[in-house]
Amino acid sequence: MSSAPRPSVGRIPVLGVGPSLEEGRWPAKAVVGEAVPVWATIMREGHDAVGATLVVTAPDGTTTSKPMPCQDFGMSLYRASTIPSTTGDYVFAVEAWSDPVTTWRTVAEVKLHAGQDIQLVLAEGVAVLERAAEQPGRAAADARLLYGAIAALRDTRLDPEARVAAAMSPKVRALLERAPLREWVTRSAQYPLRVDRERALVSAWYEMFPRSEGARYDAATKAWVSGTFATAARRLPAIARMGFDIVYLTPIHPIGTTFRKGRNNSLDAGPDDPGSPYAIGSPDGGHDAIHPQLGTLADFLAFVAKAKKSGLEVGLDFALQCSPDHPWVTEHPEWFGVRADGSIAYAENPPKKYQDIYPLSFDRDPEGLYLAIREVLEVWIRAGVTAFRVDNPHTKPLTFWERLLADVRASHPEIIFLSEAFTLPPMMHMLAKIGFHQSYTYFTWRPTATEMGDYLTELAGASSYYMRPSFWPTTHDILTPDMQSGGAPIFAARAVIAATGSPSWGIYSGYELVENVARPGVEEQIDNEKYEYKPREWARARRLGIAQLLTTLNETRRAHPSLQRMRGLTVHPTDNPAILCFSRHVSAQESPTGFADAVIVAVSFDPFHEQATTVTFDPAAIGLTSGHPFAVEDALTGQTYEWGDTFYVKLGPRTSMAHVAAVRLA
Amino acid sequence: MSSAPRPSVGRIPVLGVGPSLEEGRWPAKAVVGEAVPVWATIMREGHDAVGATLVVTAPDGTTTSKPMPCQDFGMSLYRASTIPSTTGDYVFAVEAWSDPVTTWRTVAEVKLHAGQDIQLVLAEGVAVLERAAEQPGRAAADARLLYGAIAALRDTRLDPEARVAAAMSPKVRALLERAPLREWVTRSAQYPLRVDRERALVSAWYEMFPRSEGARYDAATKAWVSGTFATAARRLPAIARMGFDIVYLTPIHPIGTTFRKGRNNSLDAGPDDPGSPYAIGSPDGGHDAIHPQLGTLADFLAFVAKAKKSGLEVGLDFALQCSPDHPWVTEHPEWFGVRADGSIAYAENPPKKYQDIYPLSFDRDPEGLYLAIREVLEVWIRAGVTAFRVDNPHTKPLTFWERLLADVRASHPEIIFLSEAFTLPPMMHMLAKIGFHQSYTYFTWRPTATEMGDYLTELAGASSYYMRPSFWPTTHDILTPDMQSGGAPIFAARAVIAATGSPSWGIYSGYELVENVARPGVEEQIDNEKYEYKPREWARARRLGIAQLLTTLNETRRAHPSLQRMRGLTVHPTDNPAILCFSRHVSAQESPTGFADAVIVAVSFDPFHEQATTVTFDPAAIGLTSGHPFAVEDALTGQTYEWGDTFYVKLGPRTSMAHVAAVRLA
Repeated sequence: MSSAPRPSVGRIPVLGVGPSLEEGRWPAKAVVGEAVPVWATIMREGHDAVGATLVVTAPDGTTTSKPMPCQDFGMSLYRASTIPSTTGDYVFAVEAWSDPVTTWRTVAEVKLHAGQDIQLVLAEGVAVLERAAEQPGRAAADARLLYGAIAALRDTRLDPEARVAAAMSPKVRALLERAPLREWVTRSAQYPLRVDRERALVSAWYEMFPRSEGARYDAATKAWVSGTFATAARRLPAIARMGFDIVYLTPIHPIGTTFRKGRNNSLDAGPDDPGSPYAIGSPDGGHDAIHPQLGTLADFLAFVAKAKKSGLEVGLDFALQCSPDHPWVTEHPEWFGVRADGSIAYAENPPKKYQDIYPLSFDRDPEGLYLAIREVLEVWIRAGVTAFRVDNPHTKPLTFWERLLADVRASHPEIIFLSEAFTLPPMMHMLAKIGFHQSYTYFTWRPTATEMGDYLTELAGASSYYMRPSFWPTTHDILTPDMQSGGAPIFAARAVIAATGSPSWGIYSGYELVENVARPGVEEQIDNEKYEYKPREWARARRLGIAQLLTTLNETRRAHPSLQRMRGLTVHPTDNPAILCFSRHVSAQESPTGFADAVIVAVSFDPFHEQATTVTFDPAAIGLTSGHPFAVEDALTGQTYEWGDTFYVKLGPRTSMAHVAAVRLA
Repeated sequence: MSSAPRPSVGRIPVLGVGPSLEEGRWPAKAVVGEAVPVWATIMREGHDAVGATLVVTAPDGTTTSKPMPCQDFGMSLYRASTIPSTTGDYVFAVEAWSDPVTTWRTVAEVKLHAGQDIQLVLAEGVAVLERAAEQPGRAAADARLLYGAIAALRDTRLDPEARVAAAMSPKVRALLERAPLREWVTRSAQYPLRVDRERALVSAWYEMFPRSEGARYDAATKAWVSGTFATAARRLPAIARMGFDIVYLTPIHPIGTTFRKGRNNSLDAGPDDPGSPYAIGSPDGGHDAIHPQLGTLADFLAFVAKAKKSGLEVGLDFALQCSPDHPWVTEHPEWFGVRADGSIAYAENPPKKYQDIYPLSFDRDPEGLYLAIREVLEVWIRAGVTAFRVDNPHTKPLTFWERLLADVRASHPEIIFLSEAFTLPPMMHMLAKIGFHQSYTYFTWRPTATEMGDYLTELAGASSYYMRPSFWPTTHDILTPDMQSGGAPIFAARAVIAATGSPSWGIYSGYELVENVARPGVEEQIDNEKYEYKPREWARARRLGIAQLLTTLNETRRAHPSLQRMRGLTVHPTDNPAILCFSRHVSAQESPTGFADAVIVAVSFDPFHEQATTVTFDPAAIGLTSGHPFAVEDALTGQTYEWGDTFYVKLGPRTSMAHVAAVRLA
């Protein structure tokens, strides 16, 4: 048995086409307005010239072509970028071809210079330009210009140099660059490119527990009164003023009471403990229902409307697990695992037991469960939700996500799914490949400048064509040791890296207040909001400066296209391991504004001491040439500096933990 | 328009399968007896166990399976190797599956230890082993063993530990490792693997101009008398004694007289100049003919027979170009390029002209020319030629080679083609991908230890799955500056690296005599054998030691499987940039002998001075553990040393330029 016959390599071989995931097994990803570089290795026998064309087919079937110039002659690498203007499924291919005009021109120049074979050169020029003029599809005006050049080549009244010069005039050259004579055209396979709306790449998320906002302890009843959608909505203008795009609500559904967790994850909840919103489902309903204490569907719709009015999208937590009190448990026991004794399986990580949670089983009635979950999403999409933060997607089958994401995409291509898969790298990447729009990352676990620099470089590389990282300095589940001890300075530094290191980032409410006390022995907040109401005195934020910093960062992100892309990031060496410096750059051709843009970020990782360093800067990383100083303006302080191939920065807790320096480009 | 629908990712996704060239666009390559590692990234949702199986289908359709163990848990990487036993086109695939037995075992061990859910653990064990026993295709004896384990799990007379222990007995484990319970089996695509005979990877070539061997100047006639196949054959026993496998003859065809080149590439050949054998074709015939001065076809057959008797294969130069006197020029002018004035195009690199050479044109009558060339090969294959050294394949279309190589392979799978493509890396690699068995490399242009170490590392990496490098310290066209000045010591050092750094290497006759004088201004021999007879006084070789070294190197290559593979090469740091150290290793499982094998090579790049270094050696590279010294024996000197994590070597022109140290493995 042998494998299927493969097509021939072709007359002008094209190989190594990218971006591609396993030769098109999954699509590469982009958003509207984002430049997608396409590359290919192209070669031919001998020394004659080749050319390459990028052919892009839009979702509506429209095809556009553009030349792919040679980027690296030694490696036979050709490259051009395409900027999709609509959402949908594109395909691209690369065409390689023999370029007889360039071949002739190269030979003609050498021979003319050497005074060799002049008549032959002229005759060969006539022949090749005739082929160009007669090429099918050649516009009449272009053909006229070419015949003019041919006539000049034949004009024996002129000297040979003048005859050849006419055939190489700038006009003729431009024509043949725009519409070249392409012979032996060899086409690559077609590669898929999925284009989403811009928010899929560029977004600032703000996470909140709606029940906390407006919650109050009633001294009379000695009981807590939950916040509601109405009280939570009062916070929306402040979130919008800070410049966020998406307000993400932790689960808003009824919460189970069986094995309910109490404060600080205790097993004995008191009657007044509201329970974790991740223990979804009670007699009041399941994933498609709203916790009665938050309000009604109408109240939720009002919240969404107010958010929209403030310029905010609403994202929901999508946590596919049930409390023992979820209606599905009795209505659809076939959607849960069963233990050998016939009981429904609760969550376990032996010997630990999580009896308040019943994981769903996707294998006993996959079709029934799928349709129910699909309908849950539809309920919230109908209510105006445009983004889902998916809790632990790596604990559900990949086939399930593959189907669900394709399905939602077909009818609601605007919906954004953010994957929360804090697990092994191959799984995190796989979820991105099969369709998640964004992914949480290992950002929080890169505590040093070196580790962070390496990670930024990695994310801006090959994976940037399918995985869109979202950087979160903290979440309701994560408070890393460095964040527990560094106070407001480390909160500031981390926010700067998150906001400028990736086009998507997110903040968990309370960040403004530098909430940094951990429950002993655990890397998460003490008095975790998951288990109790946590109303906040926002007035206290002013003194800490973080809210203002978040505002400035989001403003700066909006002003700078280079901060709205994952690629274009370069880490520059510093001589102090406590300071990270990276630049962000987008060229004029690849910028949605039509103007080049560059920002240089320098951040200290030491929240306790002043640190200084000399940065060895590579100006080529931002499209500048060595030896020419340039002016920058720090978006955080308004101060201006003149920087160049090397520059000195001093950062610290008492002055500023970072520069976010916009480069003044000519 | 959207791209074709792709198959689902599958329940237990398999991705990143290799070795693969663009997902099977071209086959990976191996030879009979060579271990081919196959790898894949495999994952699943949650924490349950997965397993992987490598499925290999041989050319005759026979399918074999073997377990793929997890090699890197963090990267979800699985790996196993297969050793093909016949030539032909194989395919392989990877199956990933849920492993419920391991999942149960892991949970059972933890819960038993914690005294938790004991009855449940026992009942779940029964259920999972029942599934295993009832699996279709389960051998009766295996099923009996499993039912025994199930009975023990149910045996309430025993304590729980004993009941579980019975289900985890070594016998049951071994059975389930050999024939596991595989659920939700997910299969990767099939990937092609082309298997050639061993000589395609492991070969020592010896190049000679047959007309030189036995040529003599006749003082009476004052003219040269050409060597013949008969006189050349006298050299065969010596070549065989040095341990070479293939004697490769530069072109043996009639040589043109029009624009014949004289001594040292001069344009004015004298009547006595024999001409370059690369200017093929005269009234005596073309590529299918023999130069009358060398003999007849019968003489050539006798030469081949003598070679075979000495254990040598015969390789021919395959130079697809013609002298103006080639019969094809008049019989088939359509096989050549035509200039605008109607004349046949000679070779040019403007402003240089090579009027003694007419390149073939593959585009005017591709079918006619193809069939003629195919028949030329058939003539020589019928005459017993088993290898072709292909001159400048990169100047002919890749589609031509793709067709020709597939065609010859179909009827003569034993024929080996060696590509001489000294051009850009992508073309060199492309020729390997589309079917050339071996390739000349940039070996000669890596004059420092660092450059050579990097290059060896590169060749032993990803490209080793399709490109088999052949290392030549010199050829009739190449004499690099370092080889011109370093005398016998550099000839020795280069031979050591060529013979031990790659499983294929080659020597151009005269190397034994340290012929190292270049024509001024050119990196090739003065009085180049291409343009004149060059009989050699072989007796002079003894004094220089190179012939003896070549013999020792070929003997050592035969004795060590690790030198017969491209992979398994590791470069080890030295503290002296003049010394390169690398190890070669093959494990017992991957060795054709069944025994592990390791050789450590240390070579000096300084032919003028003694050099010493400490090598920082990584014993893991040869399957040993750190901290345990090991004994080695130098194949060049017979001396033994005790080496370890670091060792000291001293090399130089007066003692030895290299160690080729066989490691005594337990």
